[in-house]
Amino acid sequence: MAGTDRGQDRADPKAPQPAVVLVRPQIGENVGAAARAMLNFGLTDLRLAAPVCAWPNAKAVNAASGASVVLNEVDTFASTRAAVGDLQWVCATTARPREMIKPVLTAVAAAEELRARLAAGLRVGILFGPERTGLENDEVALADAVVTIPLNPGFASLNLAQAVVLVAYEYFQAGDSTPAVQDDHERLGRASKADITSLLDHMVRELDGTSFFRSDDRRERRIQELELLLHRRELRVAEIHTLRGVVKALTQERRPARRRQSV
Amino acid sequence: MAGTDRGQDRADPKAPQPAVVLVRPQIGENVGAAARAMLNFGLTDLRLAAPVCAWPNAKAVNAASGASVVLNEVDTFASTRAAVGDLQWVCATTARPREMIKPVLTAVAAAEELRARLAAGLRVGILFGPERTGLENDEVALADAVVTIPLNPGFASLNLAQAVVLVAYEYFQAGDSTPAVQDDHERLGRASKADITSLLDHMVRELDGTSFFRSDDRRERRIQELELLLHRRELRVAEIHTLRGVVKALTQERRPARRRQSV
Repeated sequence: MAGTDRGQDRADPKAPQPAVVLVRPQIGENVGAAARAMLNFGLTDLRLAAPVCAWPNAKAVNAASGASVVLNEVDTFASTRAAVGDLQWVCATTARPREMIKPVLTAVAAAEELRARLAAGLRVGILFGPERTGLENDEVALADAVVTIPLNPGFASLNLAQAVVLVAYEYFQAGDSTPAVQDDHERLGRASKADITSLLDHMVRELDGTSFFRSDDRRERRIQELELLLHRRELRVAEIHTLRGVVKALTQERRPARRRQSV
Repeated sequence: MAGTDRGQDRADPKAPQPAVVLVRPQIGENVGAAARAMLNFGLTDLRLAAPVCAWPNAKAVNAASGASVVLNEVDTFASTRAAVGDLQWVCATTARPREMIKPVLTAVAAAEELRARLAAGLRVGILFGPERTGLENDEVALADAVVTIPLNPGFASLNLAQAVVLVAYEYFQAGDSTPAVQDDHERLGRASKADITSLLDHMVRELDGTSFFRSDDRRERRIQELELLLHRRELRVAEIHTLRGVVKALTQERRPARRRQSV
């Protein structure tokens, strides 16, 4: 039964995606946190090779924080070799360099390689070693490439779930088209230059009746200062209305001054 | 005493870096995991605004896994406003868009902005909201920009420490020059074309005494197959020696076949 239903409660069973293989994980919480991190970035194929922690694991369920679609479908294997048996391209995460002839990739480069191989129709995966020791050399030897995340050489002990989230994040990023910077000005009604000029005119009109412009000479310069200030602020229409309301209130509706309440 | 020693046990007290401000954190483990993640990427200025969890916190120490250089120097503040009081540019992480006129940045763009402002001599920081609710709108209003990490819209609940590690990672990446792909071939002695030709000659010499080349016509083709195979493999000198040793052993030293032991 589980076999036939398998794909259906996954996020997108049709889209091929990399398998995440945790080798001999020791701590149930880390498996749960890894499952949650995977689902955050759309990955659902989690495999455990010879888990050291008990499995199933209540602490993993708790740490997965609702990512049961991943946790309920975890496949366990007796060995790393068995866990990657069906895969055609594998990368292995390592904290330190190994003396092996394998390309060493950043997480960004690994994400690109994974996507390129998937696009070519290959079954791919990523190996993560046990918390304390990392992968054995003969496990790294199974891989086509090594992934090493550049980090502070003075404190390079990265938590297992943190390593998973970084690789999953880069995998998602490589297929994501969110613009680096989004600005809501357009959508929220950015003010036109005429809106700003009209506000300025309003302010100058009201200020002419006060001591703000001390002399004609000074008037010119202060108007220019205001103009620069207003045009630099990328105001939106609603803000222009707010500021005109402030000017209006200060000139027409002002009641006797009272002590300002501290916010 | 703590005040005067403060900078000295930080990773690099001279280098200006962004402050990480956790607003009303609820779970001690998350503060500890955030401290560890920060130090992984060289950040040490951790601030807590109105922490809900007890502080100091034994579970935080445990989760920090040795990042005491960060944890021992945590500054706590009564409010978010107080925690960012000395800062001149701040970005606020949010899971969902807010109707505010602020640029919305990916983590990559935020890292670039942070570095650019630091390079210009500004004091900068990153706000992270409480686990369950995220930042309040009036806290986001304090920020110059919003950071939203693109993720699976179907499961967008990112753990607090995971959010911290992603932003810290991108901050580190933006200043890191590790090549995307490193290949050890050069350093480990990549074989020259002559090394490969010499191996091929050795193989052909030995194979000529066997049934491998059935006819002269076939010989030409099979030699070409071997040549393609060997030149495609990016072999190193040591591997050429290994393969020549295999050929030598198979032709000169072979003892009566015995059943191969399974590895």
